[in-house]
Amino acid sequence: MAGNRAVAYQGPGVVEVVDTAYPTFELQDGPGVNPANVGRKLPHAAILKVVTTNICGSDQHMVRGRTTAPAGLILGHEITGEVVEVGPGVEFIKSGDVVSVPFNISCGRCTNCKKQRTEICLNVNPDRPGSAYGYVDMGGWVGGQAEYVLVPYADWNLLKFPDRDQALEKILDLTMLSDIFPTGFHGAVSAGVGPGSSVYVAGAGPVGIAAAVGAQLLGAAAVIVADMNADRLAQAASFGCETIDVSQEDPRQGIARILGREEVDAGVDAVGFEARGHGHGAQEAPATVLNTLMDITEAGGALGIPGLYVTGDPGGIDEAAKVGSLSLRLGLGWAKALSFTTGQCPVMKYHRRLMEAILHDRVRIADAVHATAISLEDAPKGYAEFDAGVARKFVIDPHGVTGKVAPL
Amino acid sequence: MAGNRAVAYQGPGVVEVVDTAYPTFELQDGPGVNPANVGRKLPHAAILKVVTTNICGSDQHMVRGRTTAPAGLILGHEITGEVVEVGPGVEFIKSGDVVSVPFNISCGRCTNCKKQRTEICLNVNPDRPGSAYGYVDMGGWVGGQAEYVLVPYADWNLLKFPDRDQALEKILDLTMLSDIFPTGFHGAVSAGVGPGSSVYVAGAGPVGIAAAVGAQLLGAAAVIVADMNADRLAQAASFGCETIDVSQEDPRQGIARILGREEVDAGVDAVGFEARGHGHGAQEAPATVLNTLMDITEAGGALGIPGLYVTGDPGGIDEAAKVGSLSLRLGLGWAKALSFTTGQCPVMKYHRRLMEAILHDRVRIADAVHATAISLEDAPKGYAEFDAGVARKFVIDPHGVTGKVAPL
Amino acid sequence: MAGNRAVAYQGPGVVEVVDTAYPTFELQDGPGVNPANVGRKLPHAAILKVVTTNICGSDQHMVRGRTTAPAGLILGHEITGEVVEVGPGVEFIKSGDVVSVPFNISCGRCTNCKKQRTEICLNVNPDRPGSAYGYVDMGGWVGGQAEYVLVPYADWNLLKFPDRDQALEKILDLTMLSDIFPTGFHGAVSAGVGPGSSVYVAGAGPVGIAAAVGAQLLGAAAVIVADMNADRLAQAASFGCETIDVSQEDPRQGIARILGREEVDAGVDAVGFEARGHGHGAQEAPATVLNTLMDITEAGGALGIPGLYVTGDPGGIDEAAKVGSLSLRLGLGWAKALSFTTGQCPVMKYHRRLMEAILHDRVRIADAVHATAISLEDAPKGYAEFDAGVARKFVIDPHGVTGKVAPL
Amino acid sequence: MAGNRAVAYQGPGVVEVVDTAYPTFELQDGPGVNPANVGRKLPHAAILKVVTTNICGSDQHMVRGRTTAPAGLILGHEITGEVVEVGPGVEFIKSGDVVSVPFNISCGRCTNCKKQRTEICLNVNPDRPGSAYGYVDMGGWVGGQAEYVLVPYADWNLLKFPDRDQALEKILDLTMLSDIFPTGFHGAVSAGVGPGSSVYVAGAGPVGIAAAVGAQLLGAAAVIVADMNADRLAQAASFGCETIDVSQEDPRQGIARILGREEVDAGVDAVGFEARGHGHGAQEAPATVLNTLMDITEAGGALGIPGLYVTGDPGGIDEAAKVGSLSLRLGLGWAKALSFTTGQCPVMKYHRRLMEAILHDRVRIADAVHATAISLEDAPKGYAEFDAGVARKFVIDPHGVTGKVAPL
Repeated sequence: MAGNRAVAYQGPGVVEVVDTAYPTFELQDGPGVNPANVGRKLPHAAILKVVTTNICGSDQHMVRGRTTAPAGLILGHEITGEVVEVGPGVEFIKSGDVVSVPFNISCGRCTNCKKQRTEICLNVNPDRPGSAYGYVDMGGWVGGQAEYVLVPYADWNLLKFPDRDQALEKILDLTMLSDIFPTGFHGAVSAGVGPGSSVYVAGAGPVGIAAAVGAQLLGAAAVIVADMNADRLAQAASFGCETIDVSQEDPRQGIARILGREEVDAGVDAVGFEARGHGHGAQEAPATVLNTLMDITEAGGALGIPGLYVTGDPGGIDEAAKVGSLSLRLGLGWAKALSFTTGQCPVMKYHRRLMEAILHDRVRIADAVHATAISLEDAPKGYAEFDAGVARKFVIDPHGVTGKVAPL
Repeated sequence: MAGNRAVAYQGPGVVEVVDTAYPTFELQDGPGVNPANVGRKLPHAAILKVVTTNICGSDQHMVRGRTTAPAGLILGHEITGEVVEVGPGVEFIKSGDVVSVPFNISCGRCTNCKKQRTEICLNVNPDRPGSAYGYVDMGGWVGGQAEYVLVPYADWNLLKFPDRDQALEKILDLTMLSDIFPTGFHGAVSAGVGPGSSVYVAGAGPVGIAAAVGAQLLGAAAVIVADMNADRLAQAASFGCETIDVSQEDPRQGIARILGREEVDAGVDAVGFEARGHGHGAQEAPATVLNTLMDITEAGGALGIPGLYVTGDPGGIDEAAKVGSLSLRLGLGWAKALSFTTGQCPVMKYHRRLMEAILHDRVRIADAVHATAISLEDAPKGYAEFDAGVARKFVIDPHGVTGKVAPL
Repeated sequence: MAGNRAVAYQGPGVVEVVDTAYPTFELQDGPGVNPANVGRKLPHAAILKVVTTNICGSDQHMVRGRTTAPAGLILGHEITGEVVEVGPGVEFIKSGDVVSVPFNISCGRCTNCKKQRTEICLNVNPDRPGSAYGYVDMGGWVGGQAEYVLVPYADWNLLKFPDRDQALEKILDLTMLSDIFPTGFHGAVSAGVGPGSSVYVAGAGPVGIAAAVGAQLLGAAAVIVADMNADRLAQAASFGCETIDVSQEDPRQGIARILGREEVDAGVDAVGFEARGHGHGAQEAPATVLNTLMDITEAGGALGIPGLYVTGDPGGIDEAAKVGSLSLRLGLGWAKALSFTTGQCPVMKYHRRLMEAILHDRVRIADAVHATAISLEDAPKGYAEFDAGVARKFVIDPHGVTGKVAPL
Repeated sequence: MAGNRAVAYQGPGVVEVVDTAYPTFELQDGPGVNPANVGRKLPHAAILKVVTTNICGSDQHMVRGRTTAPAGLILGHEITGEVVEVGPGVEFIKSGDVVSVPFNISCGRCTNCKKQRTEICLNVNPDRPGSAYGYVDMGGWVGGQAEYVLVPYADWNLLKFPDRDQALEKILDLTMLSDIFPTGFHGAVSAGVGPGSSVYVAGAGPVGIAAAVGAQLLGAAAVIVADMNADRLAQAASFGCETIDVSQEDPRQGIARILGREEVDAGVDAVGFEARGHGHGAQEAPATVLNTLMDITEAGGALGIPGLYVTGDPGGIDEAAKVGSLSLRLGLGWAKALSFTTGQCPVMKYHRRLMEAILHDRVRIADAVHATAISLEDAPKGYAEFDAGVARKFVIDPHGVTGKVAPL
C-alpha cells in the first residue's frame, strides 16, 4: 500500500504538508469526520491519483480561522485526477480514466440528486444537505490537496475526459471544472445573463473572473467587474471586461461611465460574507455587496449569489454576523421586483458542457484566472500569496504531471 | 357631465367618501399627483362605471399613516367596471364591455411591458418603474373606489369578460382578478408550487387565502396556512387548508404535526413589512416572516414574496426599518440553496387564465376570502372592520349592481 | 430458491401464464434478451415480490403481432412491489420497502440520467437509448407480470412509499405511478397545460384518462376527451371531463359545442401509431390524431405526444407506415407556430410528486381509469377484454395482496 | 405630399421598381389587401423614410410563383428606417428616431402580443393569426422595399436605436435585426443551443448563417453548417463554422469526421419547404431536411424549425406537398424523444438584446452574411442574383444613406 502526502489545516493561519493515509474503501475516523460517517462502506468509490488540485477562496475562510475547522483537517475540494482503483460497485468508470471531480459530493440516489440538485444531496453529510471534500461541517470526506484521494459514488460523480492526451494538454483549463468555472458560470446563469446582457460582477478573485468568463460565454454584451484590488482588476481587463475600482469610484457612477446608464441587467455576488465596504480603507461590512447589487441592478433583474454566506461565523463583526444575519435593503429589492438565487453551484449541471467549450477552444479560463501550477510542497506558500491578494489561481500538481510547475 | 363620489384618505385613521371630479382624458392635478404627470393626454384611456372595487390590505398601510400619502388622495386599485366611454386611440375595447382592471398600471409600449413585466412599466410613474391606481408615490393615477374611474392604455390593460350576464353572475369571484387572486397565485407560482407540492403560506388575510387557493389550483398536495387570527385561520380551513396558529404553536412543530416532517417544499410570504413576531403578544418584527420561511422551507426550495416591503416606512420600529432594511438570516438561506422572488405581481401574466378557471367553476375564490359586498358610503366602516382583522374581503359596489350589498 | 410464474407472449393473439425462473443478480439469456446484455452482473439490483402489475396498451402492440417480439417473452412493465432481497451495491433501499418501479429502466450514471432524461438512458439497452421491462428491442430485461421480478439500479430506480399500510390501502391508485399516471401527466405537461387551460385529449384509454386527470391536477379549466368508444367516453365523463365521440361528431364542432370556440390551448395524443380515422367505420390511419390536433389547437399552442410511434411496424398499412413515416400537415402546424414533444415519459421526473397528490387525496386515478384487480392466472382474459375495448385498467395481483381480486 | 417608389412583384420571375403612393394613416386598397383591412384607420402608425430594407429568401417563394401573390404586390418585410411622421396615437416614438421594424406586424393589444407571441398577433390579419409587410395572405400591409413605408402600432413595434450616428455606422449589422438575425437566433434557441452545445444547421443561406452566428453567441462549442452551395459553405467557414457539403458527403459521416461521433445535440432547419434531397443532382424533396435532422440529432435533443413551411404550395411536387403535408419519420423522432418548435420568429422577443450584442461588438452579422448594399433600382438584379445562389445578403438602400451602395 502506497503512502500519501496532503495539505493540512493546522490552526489559524497555519497550513502544512503532512504524511497521511492512502485512501481505503471505507471512511476512516480523523479530524472533522462526522461520527455517523465513520466506518461507512464505499464500494462505489474510486481512488484517484491527483493530477491537479486548486486552492480555493473558500478554503481561506477556514485557514483564516473564520470557521470551526479542527487542526489536522486535510484541505482541498477542487480535484482532477487519474483513476487508479475502483470499488466493486463501480461499473462504467475505469482505471486510467482522467476525470474531473465536482466539489459537491453527491450520492446519485436521493431525491435531490435525481433533480440534479447535487449541491444539496441528502445522503452524504449527516449534518445537513450538501457536502464537499476537505471542508468543515461537511461530513468528513478527506480533502484532495494530496497525492491520492478517494471519490465516492464514482460512476455518478466523475466526469471523464474523452481523450487522455487532449486532457493533459488543456489540464490548466480543465482543472477549473471542479469548482470555480461552474460556480462562476452558475452565478451568471442565475443572474439571468444571456445574449446581449449587461452584468456587474462583484469581486475579481477567481470566482468573479470565472463568472465574467461565463457571462461572456453566455453572450453578454457588457461584463463589468468590480473590486478594490488593482492587480485583479487588471486581470479582468486582460480578457475584455470593463472594470470598476470600488475603492476609488462609486459603482453607479462607474456603470454610467461605461454604459451611459446607471444600472445593469444582472448582478453577481462573487464575494460572500467577508465583504468589505466600498471606498478607501473600507472595513468588513458583510451586507455591502448585496445591497450594492440591489441598488445597481435594474428593476426586474436577478442576482446570482455564488459567494459564500454561512450560518455561523465566529469572527463575524457583530452578533448578527456571527449567526449569518445581514441587514439587507429588501424594501429596495422588492420595489424593483428583483429575484435572488443563493447556494452552492450544482457542478454536475454544467461541467460537461463547459468541458466541451474548453475542448473546442471557446473559452480560455486558465489564462483568465492566471492559473499557476505549483508543487504540493509549495501549497503553504500558495495559500499565503493567495490570501495576500495576488491575481493568480494556484493549481497544485502533486506528481508533476502538467510539466508547468514553477517554484514560488 | 356626471359627477363622481369616491373614497378618500384624509389623514391617519381617517377615510371619507367625498364628491370628486368625473374623469377626463387628461390627467388633472390633485393630491398625490406627480407634477410630471399633470396635464398628460390620455387618448388611449377608457372611462369605467365601477361595478366593484375592493378594499386591499395594502391600502391599510396608507390609512394607518405608515406612508407619506397626502390627505385627499382617492383610494382604490382593485377595480372591475363597465366601459362607458373610450378615447380616440382605443380600438378594440368598446362601451358596454365589462372588464377587469389590473392594479398595475402599464403602458404596453415599453421594454418591460413587452416582456409582460407590467409591474415595472417604465412609462407611467415618473418616480420609478411601476404604478397603481390610488396609491402614494405611484404617479398620481386616481383611485377607483368611486363611481367612475379612468383607465389609461385601455386596449392593453383591460381584460374583457366574454359574456356580460355570466360576468355579473360571478362578479364576486371575478372582482378578485384585479389584484389579490393573481397576487396570491403569483406568490405560489414563484414559490415553485406545482402538483404534489407542500406549501406554507404565512398570513391568512385575503392575499394569503388567495395564495392558498392558487396553490390548490396548481395541484399542491398540502397547503398550510399560518396566522395569529383565529377567524382568518378558520376561513382557511373552510376550503381544505391545514392551519397553524403561530401565536400558539411553533411553525416547525406545526408542520411536523401535519406532514410528519418539519419542512415544506415551498414558502409564501403574504404578510410583508408590518409582520409581527410569533408567540403570544408578539410585537412588530419585520424580518420574522422571511426568517421563518427560510427555516421551514427545505433545501433547494423557493420563497414567493408577494407581501409588500417598502423603501421607506416612517412608522418603522427602528432606523433600519425606516429605510426598508431587514436583518435576514441569509447565511441560512444560502446554506439551503434557497431562491427568492420579490415584487408586485404582474397581473396581466395570470388574469386571463384565472378568469377561465373561475368561469369554468374550477375555483371559488369569493367564498374562500368571504367576499362581502358593501355600498360606497359604507367604505369607511369596511376599512375599520378590515383593519380590526375581520375574516372578510370587502367589495364596494357603488351602483348596487351585484344585488348583494348588505349594510355593515 | 423459489420458483416463479409469469405472463408470456406466445405469438400473435396468444398470452399465457408460464413457469419461469426466479430472478438472479445476473441477466440470463432468454427470449428477446440482447446478446450484449447476457451475463451482465447486477449487484445494484433488488428482487421484488410483485404487489401489483398492470396490463398496458403498449403491451397490446406486441400481443397483436405488430412488433418483432419473440415467443416466450415475459411481459409487464408496470410494476409495484415489495423488496425481498437486495444486491451488495444497494445502500438505501431495504428489504420490506414497498416501492413503485418506473417502467423506464435507467442506470442513474449516464449523461441522460443526470439530466433526469431517464427515458433515454444510455447504459441499459445495447440497441438504442432507453429501455423498459418485458418489451421487445429493449435489451431483454424480464417483464414484471410475474410473482417476482428483478429491478436493476435499485437505489436509483425505486420510489419508496413512506408508509407500508398507507401504501397498501391506496395500492390501486399507487400502482398507476409506474407508467400511465406519469405518462398521461407528461402528455399534459408537455402540451403546456396549466391553470385555466383548455385541453383536448385524443383517446380515452387508460393513458388518455390519466392525461385528463393530470390536466385537472394541473388546474385546467376545461378537459375534453375524444374517442370512438362510448364506454370509455362515459368513463371520462364520470370524473368531470367533457367528451366528443369522434365517430359521430367532428372534433372542431364538438369543441365549439363545449367551449363556444373551435380551438383549444393544448392537445394531447394518447393514441399513437395504431390510430384510426374519424367517422363511422373508420379504418387505421396513423396520422389522423396528429393532423387533427394541429387543426384544433390554437396558434401558439403545444402538442404533447405520449402515444407511442415506432420506427418499424410490420403490420403498417403501407410502406411508409412500416418504417414509421406519417404524412403530417406540418405546413399547418408551422403556420400556427405549434411545438411538439414526443417520446416516452421520464417517469422519475414526476412520480414522487404524483405520489404525494395520491397520498393527500388530491387525485383518484384508480377510480378514473376503473382499476380492476385480477389474479395472475386471469391475465390472458384481461388482455383479451382490454383489447376488446373495455373501459377498465387491469391490475394483476399475483399474491392476492390487494384483497380486491375478482374473477373475470 | 411626396411620391414613393417601391419594388413590386409582377408575376413569376418578374420584379420591377414602380411608382407608388406615399403612405397614409389609413390602409388603402391595392394588390393583395384583404377587403376587411381596407379603410382601416391607423392613428397609431408612423411613416418611415426607409434607411435599409433587405431581400429575404422568403420573398423568393413569391417571386418564383410558388404562392398566390397577385401582380403589383409591393415586396419587403425587412425594414430599418427613420421616422418622418407619427399619428396622433403615437406617444413615445418621435420623428427623427432611427428604428428597426420587426417583420411580424403586431398590435400590442391582443392575448398573443401580451405573451410576446407577436408572430401570431390576432388583430392585424383577417385571415389567420400573424402578419408581415409585403407578403401574400398577410392582410395587405404594404411592403417596405420602398422609399417610404408605414408601420402600424409604432410605439409597440419599433425598436429605437439609442444613438443615431452609432446606428448609421453599424447599419449593415443593425439592418439584420428586422428578420434574419432574430429568425436564425430563434432557430438556435428553440433547438436548445447553449454553452457547449454542438449544433447542425441545415442551410447556409442568410437565415442559416444567422442561426450559426446566433449559436456562436449562445456559446455553442461546435457549429456545423450544411448546404450544397460551395460559396455559401465558404461563407459559413469564414467565421469559424465547420461545414458539410451534402451533395458530396453524408451528414452522419460529416458529423463523425468533425466531432468524432455521429450525432449533434441540436438541429436547426434553415431551409423549409423548398428543400432538395441530398447527393449529386438532388431534386426537391420537402421532407429531406426534417428527416435528416431527426436522424442526426441525438436522443433527447430538440429541433428548431425557422425554415418556412406553408399550408398551400401550388408548385408542390405532389398532392400532399400542395397542401403542406410531408412524409416525416415521426416514429424515429418519437423513439429519440425529440421535440420540435415551428413557426415565425417573434422578433420582438430577441431584437433588443441582439442590438446590444451588435452595438457592443459581440457579433458581426453583416460580415457573416456578406451584407451588400445596393440601390433601390438594382433590386431586380439583387433578386436574380440571390435566386441564383450567390453567397450575399442584399441590402437595399433607397436613399443612399449607408454610403456603401455599389452597382450590381
